[in-house]
Amino acid sequence: MTRIGIDAMGGDYAPQAVVSGAVLAAGLIAPQSKIVLFGDRPSIEELLAKENFRADAFDIVHTTQVIEMGDNPALTFRQKPDSSIAVGFRHLTEGRIDGFASAGSTGAMMVGCMYTVKQIEGIIRPAISSVIPTIDGGSVMLLDVGLNVDCKPEVLYQYAVIGNLYAQGVLGKKEPRIALLNIGEEKEKGNLQTKAAYELMDGSADFRFVGNIEAKHIFSGRIADVVVCDGFVGNTIIKQVEGVYNMALEQGLRNTYFNQLNYETVGGTPVLGINAPVLIGHGCSSAEAIKNMVLQTEKTIHAQLDTKLRERFS
Amino acid sequence: MTRIGIDAMGGDYAPQAVVSGAVLAAGLIAPQSKIVLFGDRPSIEELLAKENFRADAFDIVHTTQVIEMGDNPALTFRQKPDSSIAVGFRHLTEGRIDGFASAGSTGAMMVGCMYTVKQIEGIIRPAISSVIPTIDGGSVMLLDVGLNVDCKPEVLYQYAVIGNLYAQGVLGKKEPRIALLNIGEEKEKGNLQTKAAYELMDGSADFRFVGNIEAKHIFSGRIADVVVCDGFVGNTIIKQVEGVYNMALEQGLRNTYFNQLNYETVGGTPVLGINAPVLIGHGCSSAEAIKNMVLQTEKTIHAQLDTKLRERFS
Repeated sequence: MTRIGIDAMGGDYAPQAVVSGAVLAAGLIAPQSKIVLFGDRPSIEELLAKENFRADAFDIVHTTQVIEMGDNPALTFRQKPDSSIAVGFRHLTEGRIDGFASAGSTGAMMVGCMYTVKQIEGIIRPAISSVIPTIDGGSVMLLDVGLNVDCKPEVLYQYAVIGNLYAQGVLGKKEPRIALLNIGEEKEKGNLQTKAAYELMDGSADFRFVGNIEAKHIFSGRIADVVVCDGFVGNTIIKQVEGVYNMALEQGLRNTYFNQLNYETVGGTPVLGINAPVLIGHGCSSAEAIKNMVLQTEKTIHAQLDTKLRERFS
Repeated sequence: MTRIGIDAMGGDYAPQAVVSGAVLAAGLIAPQSKIVLFGDRPSIEELLAKENFRADAFDIVHTTQVIEMGDNPALTFRQKPDSSIAVGFRHLTEGRIDGFASAGSTGAMMVGCMYTVKQIEGIIRPAISSVIPTIDGGSVMLLDVGLNVDCKPEVLYQYAVIGNLYAQGVLGKKEPRIALLNIGEEKEKGNLQTKAAYELMDGSADFRFVGNIEAKHIFSGRIADVVVCDGFVGNTIIKQVEGVYNMALEQGLRNTYFNQLNYETVGGTPVLGINAPVLIGHGCSSAEAIKNMVLQTEKTIHAQLDTKLRERFS
C-alpha cells in the first residue's frame, strides 16, 4: 500500500481546490495507492459530499490548526503543533505515510524538510527543482531553483547526481543527458563556480555529462534532460518563464506550447536530497494543479529516490 | 563635428551590411555628424557606388587587415596592427574620432577597450549592457550582461551609477528607476552578493533606487528603467530572451512585441566605464542593425557619458 499524504489546508484555494484535486487524482492513482488528507475533518467531509464522493475513499487525519502565510516558518511547528503541515511531517517521519505534499507555506514546508525529515547524510545541500515542458513535447528538469543561492562546485556536482536519479526514476528517461547551465558552450566559459563545476562533471562516471548549455537552448529539449545551476540563477530562469507566460497571456498569444508554461497547472516542486518524498505546490494551485501534485508525489514515492540517494552517498 | 567611427569589416555580412547600414544612418544623423568608415577603401567605394551614394558623404580610413573570428583576441592587435579594429581604436585614443563601433570580434573589441581606451579610474570593472524593449513601448537597460561574471557588491553599486547616467543621457529618462535583480522583492531575499548590494544601494543619493526586481517583471516596464545584475545572471537573462524569440519564431507566433526582441535589429552593446564611447554589435548584424548601431553610437557620444563618469569617480 502506497500512502500519499496531502495537506488539505494548504494553498490559496484550500480546502476546496485540494479536495477537488484529490478527487480528480483518486481515479488515476494505482489501486494499491491511497490518498491521506490532513486537515479539518468536517470541512473535508462536507466538500467530499458536495462532490458526491465516498469519504472512505480517502483517509482523513483530523487537524485543528492551519499555518498562515504570515506565520514565521521557523516557529510555526512549535506554535502550531496540530497544524496540517506539522502533523503531516510527523506522520511522514513515523512511516505512517510514504510521501507528503502541500501547496501551503513554502517556508514551513522547508522547515519540515530540514528539521523533521532531515537531509540525507553525505548530501551537502538539498535542492528544489522545476520540470518544464520542452518544445519537442518532452520535459527538462532544472535544479536548483531557489533553495541554495550560493552554491559551491561540489554542490552542483551532487545536483547532477540527484537530477540523474530523478530523471531516471520519475521522468522515465533511461540515460538522461546532464548539462551545466553556463554563458557559453565552450569548456572554458563561465564564472569561477561553473568553470570548477565543469571540471568536476566532465568525464564523471555518475552520469552522462553533455557539457555546458546556454539558457536559450534549455527549452528546445534537444540538448539536455537535466540542467544543473545554482539556486539564484535557476530561480531567475523560472521567474523569467513565468514572465514570458504572463506576457503571452497579456498579448493574447494563444499557443499550445506557451500554454503549457502555466505554472498553475504544474504539479509540485520536489525537495530533493532529503530522507522522504516531499513536494511543494504553488500557492495558487487549482484543482488541476493539485491533481498533478498528487500524481507526482505517487511517482516520486515509487521511484524510491531517497533510498537510492542514501545508497549512493553512504 | 561629431565623428562616428564604424568598422566596415566587422560582422558576418561585412562589408556589404555595414556599408548599407551606414548609408541608411547617413540620412538620420545630425548635420554636424559624420560617419568614418574603417576598412578596405576599394571595396567600400564599390559598395557605395552600387548604392548610388556619394563616397565623400563618408570619411574612409583605408585599412589592409581584417580580424577574423578565429584570431586570438589578445594577440590580434600586435599581429594585425593595420586591421580595421586596431586602426579604429588608434584613431579613437588619438581623438580623431569621437566613438567607435564594430559588429566584428567581441574579443578584439574588448581588448581594444581594456588596453587601448582603458577603464576610467575609480571604476572597478566596466560593464556591457543590453537595452531591451518593454511591453509598454519603452525600454529597460540591463547591466552587466556578460563582461564581469563574478561581481562584488561594490561593482553592482557602480553599475547602478553608470546605468543611471546612461539612462539619463542616452535613453532620455529624467529620473531613471534603478532596480537590483533578485529572486524576491523583499529586502532580505537573495544570495550573499545581492543582499550586500541591496544594503549599499538602499537610500543612495547617487540614483533613485526602487528595490529588488524579479526576472518576471523586467519586461513589463512598470518597475524599473535600469536593472543591475552580475554578468553571469545578465547574460543568462538575455540568452533566455533570445531563446524565447527563437521559440516564438519556430512556433509561428507573430506579435509586434515579440518581434522587437529580435536581437538582430537591436543596435549595439555599449561598453560602459571606459574612457571613450565604444559599441559592440551582434555578429549577425543586418544593415538595419548597423544603422541602429551608428545612431546609438552618435547618441552615446553626445551623452558625454565618459566625461560624466570621470567627474563622478575622480
